[in-house]
Amino acid sequence: MPAQRRLHLGAFMRPVSIHTGAWRYPGAFPDANFNIAHLRRFIRKLEEGKFDAFFMADHLAVLNMPIEALKRSHTVTSFEPFTLLSAFAGATERIGLVGTASTTFDAPFHIARRFASLDHISGGRAGWNIVTTSNPDAALNFGHDEQTEHAARYRRAREFYEVVTGLWDSFADDAFVRDTASGFYFDPERMHVLDHKGEHFSVRGPLNIARPVQGWPVIVQAGASDDGRQLAAETAEVVFTAVNSIEAGRAFYTDVKARVEKAGRSRDHLKILPGALVVVGDSLDEARETRARLDGLVHEASAIAALSIALGVDASSFDPDGPLPEVPHTNASKSGRERAIALARAENLTVRQLAQRLGGYGGLSFVGTPQTIADAMEEWLVTEGSDGFNVMFPFVPEGLDAFVDKVVPELQRRGIFRRDYEGTTLREHLGLPRPPNRFFPDA
Amino acid sequence: MPAQRRLHLGAFMRPVSIHTGAWRYPGAFPDANFNIAHLRRFIRKLEEGKFDAFFMADHLAVLNMPIEALKRSHTVTSFEPFTLLSAFAGATERIGLVGTASTTFDAPFHIARRFASLDHISGGRAGWNIVTTSNPDAALNFGHDEQTEHAARYRRAREFYEVVTGLWDSFADDAFVRDTASGFYFDPERMHVLDHKGEHFSVRGPLNIARPVQGWPVIVQAGASDDGRQLAAETAEVVFTAVNSIEAGRAFYTDVKARVEKAGRSRDHLKILPGALVVVGDSLDEARETRARLDGLVHEASAIAALSIALGVDASSFDPDGPLPEVPHTNASKSGRERAIALARAENLTVRQLAQRLGGYGGLSFVGTPQTIADAMEEWLVTEGSDGFNVMFPFVPEGLDAFVDKVVPELQRRGIFRRDYEGTTLREHLGLPRPPNRFFPDA
Repeated sequence: MPAQRRLHLGAFMRPVSIHTGAWRYPGAFPDANFNIAHLRRFIRKLEEGKFDAFFMADHLAVLNMPIEALKRSHTVTSFEPFTLLSAFAGATERIGLVGTASTTFDAPFHIARRFASLDHISGGRAGWNIVTTSNPDAALNFGHDEQTEHAARYRRAREFYEVVTGLWDSFADDAFVRDTASGFYFDPERMHVLDHKGEHFSVRGPLNIARPVQGWPVIVQAGASDDGRQLAAETAEVVFTAVNSIEAGRAFYTDVKARVEKAGRSRDHLKILPGALVVVGDSLDEARETRARLDGLVHEASAIAALSIALGVDASSFDPDGPLPEVPHTNASKSGRERAIALARAENLTVRQLAQRLGGYGGLSFVGTPQTIADAMEEWLVTEGSDGFNVMFPFVPEGLDAFVDKVVPELQRRGIFRRDYEGTTLREHLGLPRPPNRFFPDA
Repeated sequence: MPAQRRLHLGAFMRPVSIHTGAWRYPGAFPDANFNIAHLRRFIRKLEEGKFDAFFMADHLAVLNMPIEALKRSHTVTSFEPFTLLSAFAGATERIGLVGTASTTFDAPFHIARRFASLDHISGGRAGWNIVTTSNPDAALNFGHDEQTEHAARYRRAREFYEVVTGLWDSFADDAFVRDTASGFYFDPERMHVLDHKGEHFSVRGPLNIARPVQGWPVIVQAGASDDGRQLAAETAEVVFTAVNSIEAGRAFYTDVKARVEKAGRSRDHLKILPGALVVVGDSLDEARETRARLDGLVHEASAIAALSIALGVDASSFDPDGPLPEVPHTNASKSGRERAIALARAENLTVRQLAQRLGGYGGLSFVGTPQTIADAMEEWLVTEGSDGFNVMFPFVPEGLDAFVDKVVPELQRRGIFRRDYEGTTLREHLGLPRPPNRFFPDA
């Protein structure tokens, strides 16, 4: 009998809550996203809850949103991932530390070196979320007037990944002999000079740091496009995805796992973790009221803008207190439009309520009791909708504490989540192999 | 009566010892330069000794030295500065954290953001050692076939500094109102868009992080050339220098402080800290024997190479056990040649001993008892040879522990070093003002 599959849980923590109203919720820390003492408390609580990893998204600009929305956003001031995750390495012992680093505006040597250093500092807990940056405001911060087109960004990302992993393999694990008698600190025969010359990069190497504890930090990706799925299938070990329903989750899971096998890899060596906002209550009604109260804190301007984007029409002329009127078909995304309409009907929402739902967080959410949330997560796991979740909290600290104190024990009771860490590295938490060194396969 | 001037002490810790034989010394930790637990112990000890700052040099390549020297070097694997200093922020409370970041191969937005993040994470203890990179091996790691020439590197560095400090000033200190009632997280009127367009950089801004705790992290430089001195006089708050004698120290001090005043700044707002290797013994003889034993661990090939460079002639044909022969004049640096000859005569050194001295560490050193070392440091302070030192340890942990346990109390007894930290930020330790925000002078 095969061992029972278990959930893997990441905590999506930049921002500390994806919900735009989170910082205003009664009892929430308004400055949580930018307070090191609060953040240290959160990651320690997540480690108490045996989470696989703390996950940091990243942005290379004050986000490109209208000023009316921007001035209400708690993401405008944030810590930088390498510095924050390194600070956390000393504050925790087991939880993984996944940071986002873009391949669009940085150099492979810097990225390889910083993740290797974080991996050594944390005893093998680093993960690299590889992204490409399409935000035009970010391009302007790096001297680019025009954004690189999508396919070119992905070609660059692919080569960037090859260079970074090649640099990580600069030294065999046994290179550093430190023989005080002979005076040999390392064996040059166990050092490889990469000498990469490609379309985008020319990088000599070697890296000036020993091979990471994990061989390579865990490779994480979030691309959903065809290019993104293919890159993930070939290179990623964790995929964060934004599917909105269990049906969409299963379709994504089936597609990506098939691509993984086609690429000659084991399907178990890539874990699929959809993002999910989780709102916990002692009763279903209480959880729904919490969600409604939270959505009610979303400013109407941002809310109507989000609804207009979803529907593909200007929603500002709709009666906010009335039901959603008939919406004409447009060239906008059909799935977004249909989802919004279905949501309004299913929950009997007014235009304002629907707009605030989408403006707060329009993606996948589990709103219920510890039992109903565990039911849903178990169904996703058992029916191959996912290998776990990248959990988002509605507000902090309460929403995070509720998940760790109430949902985690219920998952553990069912045997679908660890009761304690069994290894020390992020790879061990995720059940991923340590990659062999391509230049020193014997080491 | 003016307050008594006091020494400022940095600890030069990358590598943990500048001396190439350090890792082989009996009782030393051979892996100290790359062991996070050891390094955490060292910085805590330095904080116990009330040091102003922990200082990390940096290199962007496995150093360009012959393989015979390289394989004996403990610097070949090292932590990256942003990650290591961030890890230290949580392990310490007061000591400053100075990291080196080159302006030659990185983007101002990244550097501004990472130092701002480190400054917030550490509660205002960050310092930026601004360097330009001339190592041709480093250039090859970033796709450059040729090294940029000296003056061009300095022009780029100057503009880089302007952009970074401009980005740090993106927000007024009072910008983040976090008003849960109105929903305004920050006041857009208190945000400045830099819109820099210059010779080397086009950077829009704003930075996506609040203004650093210190306003700006402390600006540190080490340039000794005319360009370097002038840049330091205009922009630096700490200068690390490699002068080799108190006379050279006074000449440098007089020149740079005059340039500072000519640039319209207070001479007290730039601190000059020469690097100095300090070897402590209970007697003068014991200290000298320690130094000789340490120098004896330097490999002859590296030693003779260092001597040849200093003299400007090939020293490999000299009798290693004989005295230094007559050396012809060449086009090489006169001061290096004269210093080597004077050193050999003054201490009656054989060719091998002289070569090992220069190959271990040829710069300024204080070798003696806590009293004679304190005498020397006091003379440098009182006669304006320096404002303190960037201390290098001969080996660790013993050399570092001896300085903190024996030399620091002697300096404190004389009233020329603090008995405890009086402030919480690096600026406060150094007696430096918090820079006003150029865009929000009222804040």
